[in-house]
Amino acid sequence: MLGRTYENQLCSIARTLEVVGERWTLLIIRDAQLGLRRFEEFQDSLGIARNVLTNRLSKLVDEGLLERVCYQERPARYEYRPTAKAKDLLTAVLALMHWGDEHAEDPAGPPRITSHVGCGGNVRDQLVCTECGQAVRPDAVLLLPGPALTDSPA
Amino acid sequence: MLGRTYENQLCSIARTLEVVGERWTLLIIRDAQLGLRRFEEFQDSLGIARNVLTNRLSKLVDEGLLERVCYQERPARYEYRPTAKAKDLLTAVLALMHWGDEHAEDPAGPPRITSHVGCGGNVRDQLVCTECGQAVRPDAVLLLPGPALTDSPA
Repeated sequence: MLGRTYENQLCSIARTLEVVGERWTLLIIRDAQLGLRRFEEFQDSLGIARNVLTNRLSKLVDEGLLERVCYQERPARYEYRPTAKAKDLLTAVLALMHWGDEHAEDPAGPPRITSHVGCGGNVRDQLVCTECGQAVRPDAVLLLPGPALTDSPA
Repeated sequence: MLGRTYENQLCSIARTLEVVGERWTLLIIRDAQLGLRRFEEFQDSLGIARNVLTNRLSKLVDEGLLERVCYQERPARYEYRPTAKAKDLLTAVLALMHWGDEHAEDPAGPPRITSHVGCGGNVRDQLVCTECGQAVRPDAVLLLPGPALTDSPA
């Protein structure tokens, strides 16, 4: 059986996938971005077993992507609110979504449109150079060894 | 046992994850972007069972993300080259990487630096509005129902 971690990978993609790479996890982040907060709402949206959902939500709380907040005292009821850490995943989530819109498209068109609040324009994910400010195409990106690779004896 | 598809999800993130959401798949895409081409190179990089790697490479070839090309005749040897479809995933892959750099960081610093060919500047992933051209923060993105959701009876 495969493990769930990527122990031998010195790689931030692997580290991210250890947090959000389990099945359904990114769809929970999507639902939180869509405004869903309560267990039953996530359950309705995803249609997965309650124990799986409980497990995923707990892990996301442990990892600091969701905050479990009591919103009613008697009986006690909780909701799950996305943290800044979860919101920082939005570019990755939307990039996966836009790739699906283009390369694994629904015949009926895109299920969701990403819209800029206030302006109403379409929001796209993009690679941008912090030095020259230009949009960067995939072929123009080099992945150079960083400190964690150049400082290691390997 | 959980299935591997997200049949009831009318969602392009789910559709993307059906193609690249299996364990190790995004790391194979990463390695292809790093210039790895041959089975043994992927095997060395990932350290996974050969049958798992064979399975993942075949699926990526079937899905049109890798092209299997004969580079030597006797004995026949093949390599795997990323297609435009794979390269289009780069923003998503780098967004996951940058999130890991920031939120699941290696104590030694980032393993990889994304550098703009020619310019040498750092490459960042970003959300940008196609209408006003501004960078868009996560809180300023609305996910509106698109054609595939508004045209359905549900």
